[in-house]
Amino acid sequence: MPIYQAPIRDYQFVLGELLNIYQQDNLSGFDEFDPELIDAVLQGVADFTTDIMLPLNGSGDVEGCRLVEGKVITPQGFIDAYQQYVDNGWATLTCDPEYGGQGLPEVVGIFATEMKTATNMAFAMYPGLTHGAYAAIHAHGSEALKAKYLDKLVSGEWTGTMNLTESHAGTDLALLRTKAIPTGDGNYSITGEKIFISSGDHDLTDNIAHLVLARLPDAPEGVKGISLFVVPKILINDDGSLGESNSLYAASLEHKMGIHGNSTCVMNFDAAIGELVGEAHQGLRAMFTMMNQARLGVGVQGLGVSEIAYQNAVAYAKDRIQGRALSGVKQPEQAADSILVHGDVRRMLLSQKAFNQGTRALMGQQALWLDQAQRDCSPEQAKAASKLAALFTPIVKGFVTDQGFKACVDAQQVFGGHGYIHEWGMEQFVRDSRIAMIYEGTNGVQALDLVGRKILSDKGATLQAWSGQVKQLIQSNIANEAMKPYLDGLMDAAGDLEKATGYIATNASKNPDLIGAASMPYMQILGITALAWMWTRSAETALAALANGSDEVAFYQDKLNTAQFYMNYWAVQTRSLRKQIQAASEGIMAFDDSAF
Amino acid sequence: MPIYQAPIRDYQFVLGELLNIYQQDNLSGFDEFDPELIDAVLQGVADFTTDIMLPLNGSGDVEGCRLVEGKVITPQGFIDAYQQYVDNGWATLTCDPEYGGQGLPEVVGIFATEMKTATNMAFAMYPGLTHGAYAAIHAHGSEALKAKYLDKLVSGEWTGTMNLTESHAGTDLALLRTKAIPTGDGNYSITGEKIFISSGDHDLTDNIAHLVLARLPDAPEGVKGISLFVVPKILINDDGSLGESNSLYAASLEHKMGIHGNSTCVMNFDAAIGELVGEAHQGLRAMFTMMNQARLGVGVQGLGVSEIAYQNAVAYAKDRIQGRALSGVKQPEQAADSILVHGDVRRMLLSQKAFNQGTRALMGQQALWLDQAQRDCSPEQAKAASKLAALFTPIVKGFVTDQGFKACVDAQQVFGGHGYIHEWGMEQFVRDSRIAMIYEGTNGVQALDLVGRKILSDKGATLQAWSGQVKQLIQSNIANEAMKPYLDGLMDAAGDLEKATGYIATNASKNPDLIGAASMPYMQILGITALAWMWTRSAETALAALANGSDEVAFYQDKLNTAQFYMNYWAVQTRSLRKQIQAASEGIMAFDDSAF
Repeated sequence: MPIYQAPIRDYQFVLGELLNIYQQDNLSGFDEFDPELIDAVLQGVADFTTDIMLPLNGSGDVEGCRLVEGKVITPQGFIDAYQQYVDNGWATLTCDPEYGGQGLPEVVGIFATEMKTATNMAFAMYPGLTHGAYAAIHAHGSEALKAKYLDKLVSGEWTGTMNLTESHAGTDLALLRTKAIPTGDGNYSITGEKIFISSGDHDLTDNIAHLVLARLPDAPEGVKGISLFVVPKILINDDGSLGESNSLYAASLEHKMGIHGNSTCVMNFDAAIGELVGEAHQGLRAMFTMMNQARLGVGVQGLGVSEIAYQNAVAYAKDRIQGRALSGVKQPEQAADSILVHGDVRRMLLSQKAFNQGTRALMGQQALWLDQAQRDCSPEQAKAASKLAALFTPIVKGFVTDQGFKACVDAQQVFGGHGYIHEWGMEQFVRDSRIAMIYEGTNGVQALDLVGRKILSDKGATLQAWSGQVKQLIQSNIANEAMKPYLDGLMDAAGDLEKATGYIATNASKNPDLIGAASMPYMQILGITALAWMWTRSAETALAALANGSDEVAFYQDKLNTAQFYMNYWAVQTRSLRKQIQAASEGIMAFDDSAF
Repeated sequence: MPIYQAPIRDYQFVLGELLNIYQQDNLSGFDEFDPELIDAVLQGVADFTTDIMLPLNGSGDVEGCRLVEGKVITPQGFIDAYQQYVDNGWATLTCDPEYGGQGLPEVVGIFATEMKTATNMAFAMYPGLTHGAYAAIHAHGSEALKAKYLDKLVSGEWTGTMNLTESHAGTDLALLRTKAIPTGDGNYSITGEKIFISSGDHDLTDNIAHLVLARLPDAPEGVKGISLFVVPKILINDDGSLGESNSLYAASLEHKMGIHGNSTCVMNFDAAIGELVGEAHQGLRAMFTMMNQARLGVGVQGLGVSEIAYQNAVAYAKDRIQGRALSGVKQPEQAADSILVHGDVRRMLLSQKAFNQGTRALMGQQALWLDQAQRDCSPEQAKAASKLAALFTPIVKGFVTDQGFKACVDAQQVFGGHGYIHEWGMEQFVRDSRIAMIYEGTNGVQALDLVGRKILSDKGATLQAWSGQVKQLIQSNIANEAMKPYLDGLMDAAGDLEKATGYIATNASKNPDLIGAASMPYMQILGITALAWMWTRSAETALAALANGSDEVAFYQDKLNTAQFYMNYWAVQTRSLRKQIQAASEGIMAFDDSAF
């Protein structure tokens, strides 16, 4: 069975040393957090995920969910584990204290999510979707709706879902057909079929709050005619007790490549009773306000699964003996050397390690921007943080899940033939992590969102603001010879980013389709540069710690070595990506449809 | 269900126009082949694979193989399909006419294998492994062994397997423990356990010829003490009829990520009766002589699955409507445009198309080198071809299966959420194609073989010989302005290859471990450059056809456009790969084991 060691020391580094969250006194509520509290929370999540969730990951994959007489049965052990999850209060971490939450910041919550995803992505999706439903009602629901749902969703006593996709309408929600008809008593009758509904039905809780996008009878066409409703599985009496079953059901379970432990349902709503969340016809806007957070939640799946895959690949590489080092026998007491002596095995592992740690720092930064956007007492700084979070949302979702999947494939490769066999767990990591590149907006949609909405639509102003931070980092370290290797890598990548941005800005107005053609290599350049930025900051922090006489010399020296490897192996990739954009984008659109 | 259209026109282009196989009069037997014959063979395989094998691909994946009372049951329909395969003579194509084969060249056989793999990789492995067993006995067996086995293996009446791996000995066969003890009557008693045995047991045929690596009692240690045996499932009487069951059995079926329709077995040999193939202690050498062919057979799996994945992604992209083109509505009669209007969808599809067609040409070239090595009447040219085939073996296996897998992932991505659902077939292509990166030597082993054995051990002489052909191609076209775009791309890639080779040659002696650290990016550079070479030759051929007034203007123009895209999108990747080698290789080995 796969092992897992929660990267607690790295969380401490990112939170306490790199992002200085304990000095963010301008953020409301942050003064209540101290390292002891946060460490205790993270250690608690680490213990729960490792002891309770991880043992159910492989068995949940084999067993999967079953639809029996109209009800979904989750894999053995999930009910008990979920009850413990609720009892221990892990559902409440980042929720509003007014509804029973602990009010912890996103920058802590994101790492709890990483551990949950790493140990059992399918299981983690039940509370993950619940949090989305909580956030939607919290942000847009009436006081009555909040009173009805939020306590239960915060505690985890009920779960939630997001019902967007229909078989003909995925990316393009303008096409959706589910109808909502007012019933005259303030409620709505919802009718339609939704597909790909994660956690759509299950046996973990007594009730499920379905958030459903549908059209009112007077709705304008397209995306401006979509409204958001909450539709409970079991109707709720005025006193909060549960009443009759609502008119909705899981019509079938999707047969998926992975995340078998999560019940991905086709949901039928047949004149089901629901209530409007927010304003009529404003459903899409309501979804969009939660998008940065939801996409960060998916992005961290790319990191979480990549991290556990890496840890297991390292353990296997140290244990498995096969062949001898090219430079001569390293372990003469054994019949062969461990495969960790081989350069290509090291290359794969270091690539994963540099990606995981760099991404963890970026995830923390992104979550902190989201916290700042909500909690900074200066409205100006909150707005600036909000814009930066929006800019980097496609990166933490699209870039991270793309590269996280590739890292899982590499980790599987370290196992040789055993990587292809279920019992070792590696092929499940590949299958599970694959979905994160698709849902919550495919990564192609992320790339288009990045170039079209986040770069071009504000004429690059937010990108400029971020680039200003990068330049400031370079300036403030340029005189320090020890920082040169990291600054060189960062400057090279940032230079390619600037040129790629210039090319797109110059050519997009003449040829709008070029935005799409160039978007994916562009997203990769920005992602790689963003990680180079985090690695440069990490190196700066590590050098300062060593200069201050820290006794954790090995830890900080390893940060420096890995930063150096990142620059030499990852950051150099921007050159070819930039050339791809400049050389290929126009040609991509020139092909006639018949050429495909 | 996935569709498939065999790329017959492209086969004709590669065989008749690019490689000129009908003008290879110096190759023994080639004068018997004409375009009509070869076209008929290819069309026959196309019909069989599309009509009979493809419909069993998805069902075979869902049903998988079962081990019932010690016998393996293949998925429904496999027995009947296999019988048709044998009855139609498809097993015999490239086999020796002396044993009932048709004596067709590898350069034709490779494309039959592409079609078989594309339509049903798991099914195709039964005859694929049989061909390996045929080749082993044909090359190394005594006349008596040949008489006993070859007719049956050629016709497909029996199948074959290759038993190399043991649980502790995969890449490093020196560690293997299976024992062979002479029984005094010229036979051997074989005892041991083998894992990952493709087609290890099944119900398709009456008998199975297991090729087994084992150690004789007096064997020297390590790889020089391994002998090759043929061990039949059912013992064969002197008159060729089947006798009693041999003492061997499938102990279990491996639970795999994909290729579920193929029975991958743990095989137990318990004093099973076998016969020696070739000389004692020369088993590994016997395996090595078949390696180029076996690895080409695995490499073409990367191409085959990538091709069918591409075709289905194109069909989906044309059919699925979602959103509007950035440059304005393209299909106003529909509620949305087809997703083929989106630049990122086009980018993914064109990347696959350029890879598939370029790889198909390279596969043909590699197969032709193998034919030349065996059939060229000039021993010198045969030797030169043999060396080129050896050089490019890691490319057609390692580079092609790596990129073929990525192409499948991209094709799956085009489907959005539907790509993750089994019914669409795309996730199966990803799961199936993944194994080709692992078996027959992991791709990391391929990369090490390339740099260590194929480049450095002959001081780059074979690489130089090939580079000479590249330079000649450039020289002979440099005056042709129409060839400039392709030559520019080829020269850039070849320049990076030369620099990367120089770096490794200079540094490897000081730091042998660097060979492993640099090997994977190096294999990619050579692979990309090799495809640039094939695309330049394809462009040259297409321009000539157009100049000669061909009426297939669209076909040849598309070759030119795709060659151009290849240079702009694929060939530009060598720059960053070269920088990776130069910057990162030394650093990779510098990390202490404790850093992982």
